[in-house]
Amino acid sequence: MQDASIGGMVATNASGTTAVRYGSMRDQLLDLEVVLADGTVIHTGTRAKKSSSGYHLTGLFAGSEGTLGIITEITMRLHGIPEYTMMARCTFDTPELCAVAAQNILLGGIQVMRMELIDATSIAEVNRQNGYDFPDKHSLFLEFAGARAAIEEEVKLTAVLMNDLGCENWEVASDPTKQKEIWKARHELSFAYQHINGLDETGSDVCVPISRLPELVAYARQLIDESGLKGGIWGHVGDGNFHTLVLFDPKAKGQREKAEYTNEALAIRAIEVGGTCTGEHGVGLGKIKFQEAEHGAALEMMKNTKRMYDPQGILNPGKIFFM
Amino acid sequence: MQDASIGGMVATNASGTTAVRYGSMRDQLLDLEVVLADGTVIHTGTRAKKSSSGYHLTGLFAGSEGTLGIITEITMRLHGIPEYTMMARCTFDTPELCAVAAQNILLGGIQVMRMELIDATSIAEVNRQNGYDFPDKHSLFLEFAGARAAIEEEVKLTAVLMNDLGCENWEVASDPTKQKEIWKARHELSFAYQHINGLDETGSDVCVPISRLPELVAYARQLIDESGLKGGIWGHVGDGNFHTLVLFDPKAKGQREKAEYTNEALAIRAIEVGGTCTGEHGVGLGKIKFQEAEHGAALEMMKNTKRMYDPQGILNPGKIFFM
Repeated sequence: MQDASIGGMVATNASGTTAVRYGSMRDQLLDLEVVLADGTVIHTGTRAKKSSSGYHLTGLFAGSEGTLGIITEITMRLHGIPEYTMMARCTFDTPELCAVAAQNILLGGIQVMRMELIDATSIAEVNRQNGYDFPDKHSLFLEFAGARAAIEEEVKLTAVLMNDLGCENWEVASDPTKQKEIWKARHELSFAYQHINGLDETGSDVCVPISRLPELVAYARQLIDESGLKGGIWGHVGDGNFHTLVLFDPKAKGQREKAEYTNEALAIRAIEVGGTCTGEHGVGLGKIKFQEAEHGAALEMMKNTKRMYDPQGILNPGKIFFM
Repeated sequence: MQDASIGGMVATNASGTTAVRYGSMRDQLLDLEVVLADGTVIHTGTRAKKSSSGYHLTGLFAGSEGTLGIITEITMRLHGIPEYTMMARCTFDTPELCAVAAQNILLGGIQVMRMELIDATSIAEVNRQNGYDFPDKHSLFLEFAGARAAIEEEVKLTAVLMNDLGCENWEVASDPTKQKEIWKARHELSFAYQHINGLDETGSDVCVPISRLPELVAYARQLIDESGLKGGIWGHVGDGNFHTLVLFDPKAKGQREKAEYTNEALAIRAIEVGGTCTGEHGVGLGKIKFQEAEHGAALEMMKNTKRMYDPQGILNPGKIFFM
């Protein structure tokens, strides 16, 4: 695992746990310096916070995965560090209920800083790898950040909403050490799965309207269970974005196909309910097959855009679409 | 004066007084249905809150002023109504100090809902038209909105920051009627200027990095004073976006040219300091002349985009650039 670079994050319009508060990379950009296929250097924006001048090329290059030009300089807005934070964690009987909980928090107007789901299988895996004893149930991780008085109110309101949904194991902390402890299972999640020797993994990155999130999370769990493989679900549920991770033995016949079927079925369902096959990681090669279903007639205009910017096909060829 | 329509606001990437909190129209969009020049209907996005799939055509159509396709359906995100609001107003000796005040509020991490400047000339005009007696000084109008406890803290902190800068006439209200009274001069501003019979008006819409806002506001005041014409300044200073309005007698020789010179000089200076000639109203015909200075080599790619989407030049021809 390597750290994400700002350039890579812009090129894929990446995001992460704080996107629920600040949006994804595209939302942070003021200007890009881009080298075009013929060597021309352009600036796509200015340093002004907003503009109604010309076409919005900044947004076009963000998420274009190097296929339209090479981004060589990035001007982005910064956000101040909030004065006060609190972290919380609670568990539910189903991952679907975690998604409903996320929905209720958003509908309650609570401006969380982060809101993450980890399903029971994944918590159990973190426990097993590290000797922890976190309740191995479907868990919702929350961070609140802002002015102290406002945060204390938000946490109280959230506790009421979670109780109404029948949450268990509610824990909340303002002390920095305890905050870290509460979120430990979330932070160590991807390492836990990487430590399973001899198995490969495959995963998905769907993002759906928040109103459809509970059913999609339930469907993802069902797909993994039906595959007979070991796998987990986690994600940035405040955005409607979540991941599956399915483990398979590359030497066992048919396992890879079963694992990959869960990704495909989930991506197709996400698109059907008005969502996207990739919420934050990009298309690359693996999601080319979903582009037509997701973008329909717009795909042809995207291809025309590619042809216009890169007539000789020299910029990250073969990515995003089959030309 | 007519009300803005959502379609028109998307087509110009318009914004207004709450953009300092929520961003401009482009930031609210999830999906657009667009009819292309050849009649093809496309959708540019999905209903998911974020996506890394395909090129960001939504952002491209927003602000394209009807030159790339006709927007026929708009899916946008909504924001909840905050539970509590307070409004404030104070005055300073120069419009430049109002801009510094706006800067300090942003640097203080105070998440204002609105933050507006009106210069002394314009306040005096509102007073004169309506028989009011608001202090005819350079004024900063503020709205705070959110959780009550947080808002009360923000207002206290703002009062300290404003006092440190030597503000006068600080007034603040939570009572709805008093809130309205405090902002009255702002709300009635554009009507006041429209009631000056026999005179035409022209105006600008520059947006600059917040760090350059004080000098630009001072420069705008200087340009108006040097023109010998009557004019005012107001704007969404939390975004670095402000307007000038210069009145002229269309029958008096040279007055129109003098008024328009203020716009041109201001737009050019805004571009020089890393800003834009139009923060929220669009290019149309009047700002075509600034497009090359603002966009440089990127302008050619914008024109290529126009040619690709509209090869026959049937979509709002003649707007944004000379082709």
